[in-house]
Amino acid sequence: MLRAALLGSAVSLVMAMPALAQDWTKSKWGPNDEIGAANYITPERVKAAAQLVKTGKTYALGIPVGADTPAYPPRSVKVTVVQPGQAGNHGIGPNQATYNDDMITGWVGVGSQMDGLGHLGVDHVYYNGNKIADFGDVSGLKKLGIDKVPPLVARGVLIDMAAYYKTDVVKEGTAFNTKEIEEAAKAQGVEIREGDVVLFHTGWLSLLGKDDKRYNGGEPGLGVEGAKYLTSKGVVAVGADTWGVEVVPFEKNTVFEVHQILLAMNGTYILENMDTSELAKDKGYEFMFVLGQPRFKGGVQSMINPVAIR
Amino acid sequence: MLRAALLGSAVSLVMAMPALAQDWTKSKWGPNDEIGAANYITPERVKAAAQLVKTGKTYALGIPVGADTPAYPPRSVKVTVVQPGQAGNHGIGPNQATYNDDMITGWVGVGSQMDGLGHLGVDHVYYNGNKIADFGDVSGLKKLGIDKVPPLVARGVLIDMAAYYKTDVVKEGTAFNTKEIEEAAKAQGVEIREGDVVLFHTGWLSLLGKDDKRYNGGEPGLGVEGAKYLTSKGVVAVGADTWGVEVVPFEKNTVFEVHQILLAMNGTYILENMDTSELAKDKGYEFMFVLGQPRFKGGVQSMINPVAIR
Amino acid sequence: MLRAALLGSAVSLVMAMPALAQDWTKSKWGPNDEIGAANYITPERVKAAAQLVKTGKTYALGIPVGADTPAYPPRSVKVTVVQPGQAGNHGIGPNQATYNDDMITGWVGVGSQMDGLGHLGVDHVYYNGNKIADFGDVSGLKKLGIDKVPPLVARGVLIDMAAYYKTDVVKEGTAFNTKEIEEAAKAQGVEIREGDVVLFHTGWLSLLGKDDKRYNGGEPGLGVEGAKYLTSKGVVAVGADTWGVEVVPFEKNTVFEVHQILLAMNGTYILENMDTSELAKDKGYEFMFVLGQPRFKGGVQSMINPVAIR
Amino acid sequence: MLRAALLGSAVSLVMAMPALAQDWTKSKWGPNDEIGAANYITPERVKAAAQLVKTGKTYALGIPVGADTPAYPPRSVKVTVVQPGQAGNHGIGPNQATYNDDMITGWVGVGSQMDGLGHLGVDHVYYNGNKIADFGDVSGLKKLGIDKVPPLVARGVLIDMAAYYKTDVVKEGTAFNTKEIEEAAKAQGVEIREGDVVLFHTGWLSLLGKDDKRYNGGEPGLGVEGAKYLTSKGVVAVGADTWGVEVVPFEKNTVFEVHQILLAMNGTYILENMDTSELAKDKGYEFMFVLGQPRFKGGVQSMINPVAIR
Repeated sequence: MLRAALLGSAVSLVMAMPALAQDWTKSKWGPNDEIGAANYITPERVKAAAQLVKTGKTYALGIPVGADTPAYPPRSVKVTVVQPGQAGNHGIGPNQATYNDDMITGWVGVGSQMDGLGHLGVDHVYYNGNKIADFGDVSGLKKLGIDKVPPLVARGVLIDMAAYYKTDVVKEGTAFNTKEIEEAAKAQGVEIREGDVVLFHTGWLSLLGKDDKRYNGGEPGLGVEGAKYLTSKGVVAVGADTWGVEVVPFEKNTVFEVHQILLAMNGTYILENMDTSELAKDKGYEFMFVLGQPRFKGGVQSMINPVAIR
Repeated sequence: MLRAALLGSAVSLVMAMPALAQDWTKSKWGPNDEIGAANYITPERVKAAAQLVKTGKTYALGIPVGADTPAYPPRSVKVTVVQPGQAGNHGIGPNQATYNDDMITGWVGVGSQMDGLGHLGVDHVYYNGNKIADFGDVSGLKKLGIDKVPPLVARGVLIDMAAYYKTDVVKEGTAFNTKEIEEAAKAQGVEIREGDVVLFHTGWLSLLGKDDKRYNGGEPGLGVEGAKYLTSKGVVAVGADTWGVEVVPFEKNTVFEVHQILLAMNGTYILENMDTSELAKDKGYEFMFVLGQPRFKGGVQSMINPVAIR
Repeated sequence: MLRAALLGSAVSLVMAMPALAQDWTKSKWGPNDEIGAANYITPERVKAAAQLVKTGKTYALGIPVGADTPAYPPRSVKVTVVQPGQAGNHGIGPNQATYNDDMITGWVGVGSQMDGLGHLGVDHVYYNGNKIADFGDVSGLKKLGIDKVPPLVARGVLIDMAAYYKTDVVKEGTAFNTKEIEEAAKAQGVEIREGDVVLFHTGWLSLLGKDDKRYNGGEPGLGVEGAKYLTSKGVVAVGADTWGVEVVPFEKNTVFEVHQILLAMNGTYILENMDTSELAKDKGYEFMFVLGQPRFKGGVQSMINPVAIR
Repeated sequence: MLRAALLGSAVSLVMAMPALAQDWTKSKWGPNDEIGAANYITPERVKAAAQLVKTGKTYALGIPVGADTPAYPPRSVKVTVVQPGQAGNHGIGPNQATYNDDMITGWVGVGSQMDGLGHLGVDHVYYNGNKIADFGDVSGLKKLGIDKVPPLVARGVLIDMAAYYKTDVVKEGTAFNTKEIEEAAKAQGVEIREGDVVLFHTGWLSLLGKDDKRYNGGEPGLGVEGAKYLTSKGVVAVGADTWGVEVVPFEKNTVFEVHQILLAMNGTYILENMDTSELAKDKGYEFMFVLGQPRFKGGVQSMINPVAIR
């Protein structure tokens, strides 16, 4: 009862905020929908995306990730290479087979990653009104698992904010809202359409390994109003060459509100630590975007390496 | 000295096997090459692959993976979902942000996976003559790391061996060599070309979750002679809907010799536990194949979910 | 505010239960105390405990623990033995040093374990009134960490409940309360005193590896009233040859209330999966008990192997 | 065959070294012995050890261990505190039970640790002639597992080398051999006897957290000749307030030869990172030593916290 009252309070709280759509806990794709903005992907759009391939150049958007990769505390990850059962021997069988394997321990959300719709919510309420008490199993989410996300094949659009601000590295705390996004897109001659995957290039990733403390301490990124703009356009996912896509320090006293707008309220995926440098250098503002994320059952996030193809 | 003598022995052993090219420890892509058959990928081939997209249908080739996924012993993997710092609270900030994160512990080589060129060798000698003592660091391979593999964007070819054998599930121990591969390809009306990614559909994956013991205990797959045939064609990677791609029980008394031929001797990638069922059902024998693998620094393998697009 | 109201509710709830002391959130050892019943240990008692050594026989109370050890879901633990950097070599240096190391992944609370005072609470309030929001860091508890527990050296008392019930294995759901404990102790000719570590022998552990499902599905153990009896006696710790010490199914509709009484309300440690079989066989009802638990910083539990010496 | 020849070479190599007993691969406790110097422990000695308790003061010899504890590369360990299934709720049952659990990932050999007899060998040959190929399973050693070690209850002897050298911190590279050990023991008025656990106090551990780089980069410790002296005395275990007990840099060009002499050749246990500071301060040169190590099945090492009692 107390619990019900509480959730009621949270909902009223949300209701009271004019900025938030009054019905965000009910997905426009129906009460059973678990994939959100991936619904924007259609065969027609996939075909159109393939037609964007003109040069045959490919871009790995994922970065190399290891124990030294800065991450949101307390996250870290480590890969350990071992040779099971091969100490002192000359391989298995007359053909002397020898092998390495790798163990992994740590957190999924390190380096290039995709936030699934079960990642972030509003007072324990997630995308499509799912309450943590109902789907949040420690051994894997019962709903909204990362394994349910279909391949994201889409038109990719790069918005070069570093070019917009005429700098190599956009400063932390710089918020991208409608004005900035529209102006930057226009300057590049591209438009954002329904079904797109939008990536921001800020140059921030160039700090990695050079100034990890600054890298992790803040970032330029999407603002609250900009997030609403992009979701109103019907984009599938938003990514950036930053650890959180969202501007930090936050614009006001809210915390990760852009994540809430994208993930919980609109089912829009977030792609973090995307290496957009080569795309920006090539002025590759429009491309075929292909992402097949590892499918951990009931997983929250996934380590990814999307491919841009031009 | 003893060690040198030993490696000498291993090399002579290999030399003595007529089946093995005498110079496999020297890559045709030069002494510094670390990516092997990925060199077959060219902008022209990427463009041609994109032109294979006709229907706009996408296929996730990766399977959902969890603690119950059978794996090569002693491998297993587990994802654990936690809510850091949120016990008893109502979210962070006035916007009540709450979130899930996932931890991962176990082995990379579970479920849908890519074997990098540092995975398997001949008596501690790996692709391009790299000796484990020189590159095998426990914190990450110093050469041949999975992070170095570029995006694999290629023409994908599905060879439906289940159809060839007129069965739903090809029996364990059934070896695919030149004869079987050529006949099956011909029956389907496709040919295997340089730069292709070749996937075998056997129906074996349908045992998963139904008869895990049988699934893990053997498999139909590529034979030694067939592996040489495929590498002579210049394929980029070979995959299958089985845990090891290679026929098990092995054809003779060698152990994982197909892995040696593909990985160590030819730099050809192996893609395991690929879900080819939907492609087979659609008779999708030719398609655009896109794989961006998570890039663990110095990693041996990677958990993957390649995307087939038709 | 909402939060304060809530905690207030929880406290009133607790106040309303006559069974619970009204001031349990204030430790009798002062507002800064973090070690609870370990305060009962004094040099005099340590000396007296040493004088209990008569035969020189030692007993390992910890059991061998591995991946197959049943545990409270979703817990499990795995040790992996590796030989870093030794594939294909003959050891390091002219003396050919070679070595094994072991990695560990999983949960601390598997097999023989000690519950620290930060393990279990009442509506997010733990021993000495500590609220989870104040001390519950994901990287290690800021208070009540297992590392702070001093060596538990005490008079150990074994209460053989299997003998009391004239059976090899006491049935699940059998609750030990004052009557049973006093009668069993009297039959054995021992009394429970302040500063003791009390262990119950039930024979339940003999199911391990034979009927793990039954083992994990319930257990005989301490009842709510019995827990109050033991804490009123001033015992340091209570253990048993069961996975949870507490009777399961629970006596009424509360859940792990005995854990709350012992840990949260009295600072009394819980020792689980203690191998008491040899002690029981030897009628070793009184002994020197010594436990030095591994000291993980901010840890909740610790894997242990206390030693009984007679 | 090649393999047999090789192991033969290793053995001849060892035979050729006059410093090594010719029959070290055969334990004096018989061909099936797996516990080595723990055989020195007898009921009489346990009783005598208990009689050393005079003041009732206890000493935790284990140190707090966490993610920041320096360790032999690539080792590290991390404990993560989580609250399974409690996000947004008020506890389980009407009694509102809430709880913390901890996960552990990393290496066992971090901080205070015991090296089991399966830890280090001579060219893949370990205590009692066990060859790694015969007992070295990745899922747990088939022989010499840490779970087999009985409780180590013994007379403990502290040799205060810092006092001997009249310094707070003995310099790295300072080797303790017969002369130094005997002189220091004599100055303290204690003698080393069969069945003892010998601990060296060097002050080295005081660098922890102050100069971790120096701490991990070397250490004062037992020399090769001193190791033979101690094993000839029949000690059960040797420990120190250093990460490796053995002097580093090594005395000559051998690598971890003291480990080989203790573990492989004599079955003598090694206890690392023992906090001897309080014992030294109290001039506690003789005490009751009690160690019950967590018993991981087939484990190589164990995280420990032995208790000294005076």
